[in-house]
Amino acid sequence: MVIIVESGADRQTVDNLVAKVSSLGFTPHPIYGVEKTVIAVVGEKTQEKIDILEMMPGVQQIIPILKPYKLVGREVRTEQSVIPLGEGLAIGGERFVVMAGPCAVESYDQLSEIARYVKSSGAQVLRGGIFKPRTSPHDFQGLREEGIPIAMAVKAEVGLPFITEVVDIRDIEVLHDVADVYQVGARNMQNFALLTELGKVDRPVMLKRGMSATVEDLLQAAEYVAVEGNANVILCERGIRTFEPSTRNTLDISAVVALKRFSHLPVVVDPSHASGHDWMVPALAKAAVAAGADGLLIETHHRPQEAKIDGHQSLTPAAFSRMMDELASFCEAAGRTL
Amino acid sequence: MVIIVESGADRQTVDNLVAKVSSLGFTPHPIYGVEKTVIAVVGEKTQEKIDILEMMPGVQQIIPILKPYKLVGREVRTEQSVIPLGEGLAIGGERFVVMAGPCAVESYDQLSEIARYVKSSGAQVLRGGIFKPRTSPHDFQGLREEGIPIAMAVKAEVGLPFITEVVDIRDIEVLHDVADVYQVGARNMQNFALLTELGKVDRPVMLKRGMSATVEDLLQAAEYVAVEGNANVILCERGIRTFEPSTRNTLDISAVVALKRFSHLPVVVDPSHASGHDWMVPALAKAAVAAGADGLLIETHHRPQEAKIDGHQSLTPAAFSRMMDELASFCEAAGRTL
Amino acid sequence: MVIIVESGADRQTVDNLVAKVSSLGFTPHPIYGVEKTVIAVVGEKTQEKIDILEMMPGVQQIIPILKPYKLVGREVRTEQSVIPLGEGLAIGGERFVVMAGPCAVESYDQLSEIARYVKSSGAQVLRGGIFKPRTSPHDFQGLREEGIPIAMAVKAEVGLPFITEVVDIRDIEVLHDVADVYQVGARNMQNFALLTELGKVDRPVMLKRGMSATVEDLLQAAEYVAVEGNANVILCERGIRTFEPSTRNTLDISAVVALKRFSHLPVVVDPSHASGHDWMVPALAKAAVAAGADGLLIETHHRPQEAKIDGHQSLTPAAFSRMMDELASFCEAAGRTL
Amino acid sequence: MVIIVESGADRQTVDNLVAKVSSLGFTPHPIYGVEKTVIAVVGEKTQEKIDILEMMPGVQQIIPILKPYKLVGREVRTEQSVIPLGEGLAIGGERFVVMAGPCAVESYDQLSEIARYVKSSGAQVLRGGIFKPRTSPHDFQGLREEGIPIAMAVKAEVGLPFITEVVDIRDIEVLHDVADVYQVGARNMQNFALLTELGKVDRPVMLKRGMSATVEDLLQAAEYVAVEGNANVILCERGIRTFEPSTRNTLDISAVVALKRFSHLPVVVDPSHASGHDWMVPALAKAAVAAGADGLLIETHHRPQEAKIDGHQSLTPAAFSRMMDELASFCEAAGRTL
Repeated sequence: MVIIVESGADRQTVDNLVAKVSSLGFTPHPIYGVEKTVIAVVGEKTQEKIDILEMMPGVQQIIPILKPYKLVGREVRTEQSVIPLGEGLAIGGERFVVMAGPCAVESYDQLSEIARYVKSSGAQVLRGGIFKPRTSPHDFQGLREEGIPIAMAVKAEVGLPFITEVVDIRDIEVLHDVADVYQVGARNMQNFALLTELGKVDRPVMLKRGMSATVEDLLQAAEYVAVEGNANVILCERGIRTFEPSTRNTLDISAVVALKRFSHLPVVVDPSHASGHDWMVPALAKAAVAAGADGLLIETHHRPQEAKIDGHQSLTPAAFSRMMDELASFCEAAGRTL
Repeated sequence: MVIIVESGADRQTVDNLVAKVSSLGFTPHPIYGVEKTVIAVVGEKTQEKIDILEMMPGVQQIIPILKPYKLVGREVRTEQSVIPLGEGLAIGGERFVVMAGPCAVESYDQLSEIARYVKSSGAQVLRGGIFKPRTSPHDFQGLREEGIPIAMAVKAEVGLPFITEVVDIRDIEVLHDVADVYQVGARNMQNFALLTELGKVDRPVMLKRGMSATVEDLLQAAEYVAVEGNANVILCERGIRTFEPSTRNTLDISAVVALKRFSHLPVVVDPSHASGHDWMVPALAKAAVAAGADGLLIETHHRPQEAKIDGHQSLTPAAFSRMMDELASFCEAAGRTL
Repeated sequence: MVIIVESGADRQTVDNLVAKVSSLGFTPHPIYGVEKTVIAVVGEKTQEKIDILEMMPGVQQIIPILKPYKLVGREVRTEQSVIPLGEGLAIGGERFVVMAGPCAVESYDQLSEIARYVKSSGAQVLRGGIFKPRTSPHDFQGLREEGIPIAMAVKAEVGLPFITEVVDIRDIEVLHDVADVYQVGARNMQNFALLTELGKVDRPVMLKRGMSATVEDLLQAAEYVAVEGNANVILCERGIRTFEPSTRNTLDISAVVALKRFSHLPVVVDPSHASGHDWMVPALAKAAVAAGADGLLIETHHRPQEAKIDGHQSLTPAAFSRMMDELASFCEAAGRTL
Repeated sequence: MVIIVESGADRQTVDNLVAKVSSLGFTPHPIYGVEKTVIAVVGEKTQEKIDILEMMPGVQQIIPILKPYKLVGREVRTEQSVIPLGEGLAIGGERFVVMAGPCAVESYDQLSEIARYVKSSGAQVLRGGIFKPRTSPHDFQGLREEGIPIAMAVKAEVGLPFITEVVDIRDIEVLHDVADVYQVGARNMQNFALLTELGKVDRPVMLKRGMSATVEDLLQAAEYVAVEGNANVILCERGIRTFEPSTRNTLDISAVVALKRFSHLPVVVDPSHASGHDWMVPALAKAAVAAGADGLLIETHHRPQEAKIDGHQSLTPAAFSRMMDELASFCEAAGRTL
């Protein structure tokens, strides 16, 4: 780290700082400039030691040099992670993975019909919410336990792995048979109790970026899962909160590029939640391919106007199929297969 | 609600919309303008019905008219809530309440020393983290279970009610004896499983606004607690995420004014986390009084440079005492007592 | 527009509102709901009349129905605008247009060398700042008048149209011979005096989105130019200010999709300023093609480490050439030619 | 400055960097850590030299140590600036200054009536827009030249200094007699041509913070005025753009505290534009006093429902008078006089 000393700090103050740095087990290297003094500090840091130094008289700012995550970063492991999702399917490699389905599982007939066209259009993973976190307690919270046998039956029929959200540590067990991938929603990205428990399961975890989480926050949240032993974490960019009202959230396409550079974990984009508009989804999906994402999470519904949640961002079967066709050309341009 | 019909929609489209509105049990009132048609809709709404309408052909936008929260809003209950915090102490009334203490409970000696000067300076509630949610899994997570007997002993000694954060539903029980008020942190504001469980306890809950939560989101999160039966919810503004780097977060002082107008719940401000700078805390604390807040949550430490967390935003005993003196004048100007 | 009446407003208040609406020349349609009353208002609006109504007792909110821009919107003109940029070149049509060059014109040798490889790599427009707006008055402000003959000479040599920024109404005249397209920077997007003057010139204007401007604000700024008679406005998305620190700004890729839907004007993306990192530019450029943009604005420099401004976001000649090759495949996937 | 070297850079890369630093006239101090190397650089910096270094191979990041503004900062001048506004009146000292009036000058009768109650309620400066920058070209742009004799007459009658906005460099001259203080609006905060010209006039300039400008950006914009010779700059916080929709902008009350610490210039708060709601203005005005502001800019109108612009954020005469009474107590608590 580098300590920037306040303008006008006298020599005694700097000497005290240097002594404190030494007493914490670091090697201090003070550099005396004309207007400013800085102290470069060599040695193994902890947040606690940084906090102590930050309170010392004369300290204007402390600048960390190392990234605050380790296991999920490229500094430790440069090689790209490829995470198996089921028989013959993996994400992070050459193959581009589309996960699609309804926002919420509503009935056997609904999920079954959607699963069939999702598969025939070329998607490789089925999505569907069983437990739904909703902003208002007065809204539909998902079929809950009743949804599990429905999803079990449908995924067996169509032969697609299934991804579903877990909102409560007590549901990890409950969802274990049905979930091939556990999804952590944006609102729970920093629910550290949940992340820690998911670090102990034998399933991949897809972690959605919180609406106000930085790229670094997301990687630190992924670190919570990895540190417990589960290295199979998939990152998901799903839009951040900004002042722009024409979309539900603002898709941060640059985050895809940044995540791929700073981390070896696969990155997925969710254009449905990011935009909140069905008419925007195909263009954003293509942009995700072009930016280097490893996959997509897409909402689709056979009858969007009857969807219980988020119908206005769900693609119709025809629109979904058209998008998949278009994606193929962009995957080819990107050197990927769909 | 009001449905705005797309420009250029033909009469048949509008008629279909009107029919759909009727079929959902509403009374439609179409108004045909020169350039635009709108349909005003009368009747009891649910989010599901709104979602269905949002997907109908010809719908440009649906504008809700009613607030999405009920129990916590002034539309249902106009009278200000006054929530008891312990013997002879309540928040939301004429008395201004200062909750102060260290970010984290570190030891008996630490908490005891801080509790004594906190009380003698005039604060009415002791704060201290036992379970700490941290952005990185490599950081100090609090004393956890070991912190409970320490806090029990100190609060008994000084006779102040104690507020502490709960980060896991499994800890609600564990903290029940020591917590006079349960605090829900910003990262868990939309951890709906936790909110639902806290709706069943016999303790007030202080709910901190998420870093990217709107005023309306916060009130809907409070509704999750209230709907389960626990009406004693205290709202806390602690800064939102913006582009401004000179503070850790941006204290949204207007939110205090908005929350007081839209809700009957008491509102507390946390200037320590909002700013991240000890030198900013007193000015923001005074602004909170002036804006109409009912209380403050303040970090203070007897030796900030040795604090295990967030030392740089903690007031020294001298600074805390000085701030309390200054606050008294502002409380008087605001017609409150400290 | 639709007027939402406050909860609890009595019949007299509503009647007064209805009378006021009539007196302003509108036709009011009050709809009395169980909990809320709304008044739909038919007739030609002006902002002044809206402001008057907004202050009437009982008004909770006024919701405009029509877009606040006309000339630049698809509601008035559905057909896509194709804007000529020079001999045989136009933007907004089937051809994808790359505008590239240094951030600032520094010398004849610099601009000449860059212009040659820019052209041979396939870009169709040369960019280069002559007058530079800088955040600090202590920074390099461009070559100013001295830069004009340099740019004149180089654009004649290579035969590319030239785009350059105008920061002062007094410079519109000065730059008239050299600028084939006038660029308005993000900081001047709402410099209405400048926009009004540019509405009177016989050159296309490229208008960059302000760092905190909404899509609607950008279209209203374009309207300032169009309303004076200059319909040749090109819109440019160049990143907005958010909390995310890993990029200089956050490229709002959805804005491209929204602008193409709401307006008939061509849309260009500037990934260099949006990201601030040379290593991010190619991925974002490809995403822009995929999202439906009509062109790109790219910074490149033959010796980025010697660039006087923004070298760290400039592509080297090799990186620029590689990006152009990759773009070709994505343009093909998008049904465009480069 | 401090240069952070990329992880994994070899010794040759570091040596090249050190040599480059020397060749630019700096003294390099490389510090070799276990995982990272940093180079502290001593010597006079310019942005150009920083840009050159930023592009060198092996550079991960360059961290500036000194503030990017000089004349307006406390590092150069610690003493608080007190700026004269007219006979016997100054801002920045012990006296708290309220500037109030209509958003726009509409007629002699309007301005005269408002000026009288503004003065009798205790405000010391009259405000009123003559040239108005509006988001849409279809909206009312102010009385323009016609407004000048009206304002001249009224300010002579009531004996208050007058502040008005300048939106075009050609109007500086035009407004010279009527404007005792020139106001630069948020949209023009980085209109550097305008700032430079205002640096040459013999009048104080009030500079409003741009909607997405950081505290540092605002101070750099003030530097543009100061560097030309006009040191009489007043800073104005008027709200920033965030995701929160319940207010027009988000008043950044912390910015007041930060600006007062980093700069010696007076700081004013505009709660009318920040909130957009008349009912919020008094609470925010009191918060501004408590936070340490030197003054307020307030919109008031004798008949808000007939105001041509922004009526919904204007205080009625009664509300204005009540607010002034309340402010007096808060000024007293803050050790100021009104």
